[in-house]
Amino acid sequence: MVSFTVTILGSSSALPTLNRFPTSQVVSLNEKLYLIDCGEGTQIQLRKFGVKAGKINHIFISHLHGDHIFGLPGLISSMALGGKKGELHIHAHSELKIMMDPLLKFINDIEEFKVIYHPLNFRSRAVIYEDLKLVIESFPLEHRIPCCGFLFREKEHELHLRSDQIEYLKIPIRDRVAIKAGANYRCPDGSIVPNKELTFPPDPVRSYAFCTDTVPRKQIIPIIQQVDLLYHEATFCDDLRDLALKTYHTTAKQAADIAILAMAKKLIIGHFSSRYKHERPLVEEARSVFPNTFPANDGERFEI
Amino acid sequence: MVSFTVTILGSSSALPTLNRFPTSQVVSLNEKLYLIDCGEGTQIQLRKFGVKAGKINHIFISHLHGDHIFGLPGLISSMALGGKKGELHIHAHSELKIMMDPLLKFINDIEEFKVIYHPLNFRSRAVIYEDLKLVIESFPLEHRIPCCGFLFREKEHELHLRSDQIEYLKIPIRDRVAIKAGANYRCPDGSIVPNKELTFPPDPVRSYAFCTDTVPRKQIIPIIQQVDLLYHEATFCDDLRDLALKTYHTTAKQAADIAILAMAKKLIIGHFSSRYKHERPLVEEARSVFPNTFPANDGERFEI
Repeated sequence: MVSFTVTILGSSSALPTLNRFPTSQVVSLNEKLYLIDCGEGTQIQLRKFGVKAGKINHIFISHLHGDHIFGLPGLISSMALGGKKGELHIHAHSELKIMMDPLLKFINDIEEFKVIYHPLNFRSRAVIYEDLKLVIESFPLEHRIPCCGFLFREKEHELHLRSDQIEYLKIPIRDRVAIKAGANYRCPDGSIVPNKELTFPPDPVRSYAFCTDTVPRKQIIPIIQQVDLLYHEATFCDDLRDLALKTYHTTAKQAADIAILAMAKKLIIGHFSSRYKHERPLVEEARSVFPNTFPANDGERFEI
Repeated sequence: MVSFTVTILGSSSALPTLNRFPTSQVVSLNEKLYLIDCGEGTQIQLRKFGVKAGKINHIFISHLHGDHIFGLPGLISSMALGGKKGELHIHAHSELKIMMDPLLKFINDIEEFKVIYHPLNFRSRAVIYEDLKLVIESFPLEHRIPCCGFLFREKEHELHLRSDQIEYLKIPIRDRVAIKAGANYRCPDGSIVPNKELTFPPDPVRSYAFCTDTVPRKQIIPIIQQVDLLYHEATFCDDLRDLALKTYHTTAKQAADIAILAMAKKLIIGHFSSRYKHERPLVEEARSVFPNTFPANDGERFEI
């Protein structure tokens, strides 16, 4: 299977700390890079963790708070300086363009590539990106301002050909594509070999859900059901549940509850308040509910 | 003497590197902090190098290229979150406000302090800040867009009282302020003691000049004459003199020439192109002309 990874570029909440930049992640699948959120310093983190910024063609912005967007001007500027060509697609609230346009005026050399904005739907689930291998959906979260989560899900893989049968029946190469897609095989003598005798099942499809800056929201459970890897914000420990509710955030225990209800296979928590000098209490709290929990730390890469 | 320092927060040119953030410096005198330029990540560097962002009340922006301003939204946002009150004065090209206003709309809690913009004069030298201890002037540089340098100069210090004479003549405390300012002393018997018998000379006034993003510009020489510490950009080595001219930058040798002509006491060079993996060739080239040259490195503090 090709590698499908998430690299944490920033894991703090609003205030960066000595170890944590503001929110940003990069998802990599099949030689393509997808950036999620772009807090200040994202371009610096990309460089530090060896990710080529110029290869990013799609950026997904959950919401328009500064700690999720203030890295965009610098990143776009450096892309321009780096000679990026073609199109850069930014999926975000429509107001982002209003914010960015006056800034981009101050960037040289941006004529070489075009920034295209795609407004997100904050009312209901929507497909926002699709290619041969991957579908990305947005779905509403609940924060102080409109906010979306993102679900990355591989498309169904092809069936694996059984090489023993292929060789035995001397199936021509031109017929194998159809068989991998599920077709039966008609032999030269007219007899039919059913597909299931010619193939093994496909690799399972893998999925990743990103949920930041939200109260715990039960409505997302069916959307992220059985997700392989769930990133959910956990800004506070559960003793600050009232503060979490007031600021429209989630506690570590609540994030773990979501993972349980969604039957996620693995949980990453992040967006930690700068009041926590170490992520340990947040991780321990989440693990007491959902043992397969890991903290987001800047630079860490998770294989999905 | 009170400490008068410059701390380098960022020393790269347009593209940040693994070791260098984009341009920013903080000048400290007399418990006051003055920020010069604010490249992306300035708030992160302030935290890393132990400088309290909330104590900054004046920011000076040389010009509106992204690598000198893209840290402003995040810094202001974090100041707001940190509970800053009162006024934040930003001295910059008048277009900065056009850029910042749409951004500041996305920052919470900014009601507590007020951002006040002061347009710079890009045509001639001008006093832009003054208090009891310090004068700050701007002066034109020459870049692709309007650009200013900044000169920080202490005001004349008071004379030092000669404690032997003060005690011998039993000069009352109320008269000493006038003597420190240069007055003679009239004794109770009516006789006059000249000031120079009562005082030692004042501490010398110290000065710092900041010149970034410019071709070498002879017109600045009289303005920065005999400056104690000169920061001058040196984006390239002198073999790339043509490229430097084309991009309106300065070579290390040219920066050293400016230091010689200005009779500066010490030179810091910075704003190094990311093509230089190490600053050594730039420093060696400048030192061959002006030996008292030092490289700007992020986190380094220079005493003036």
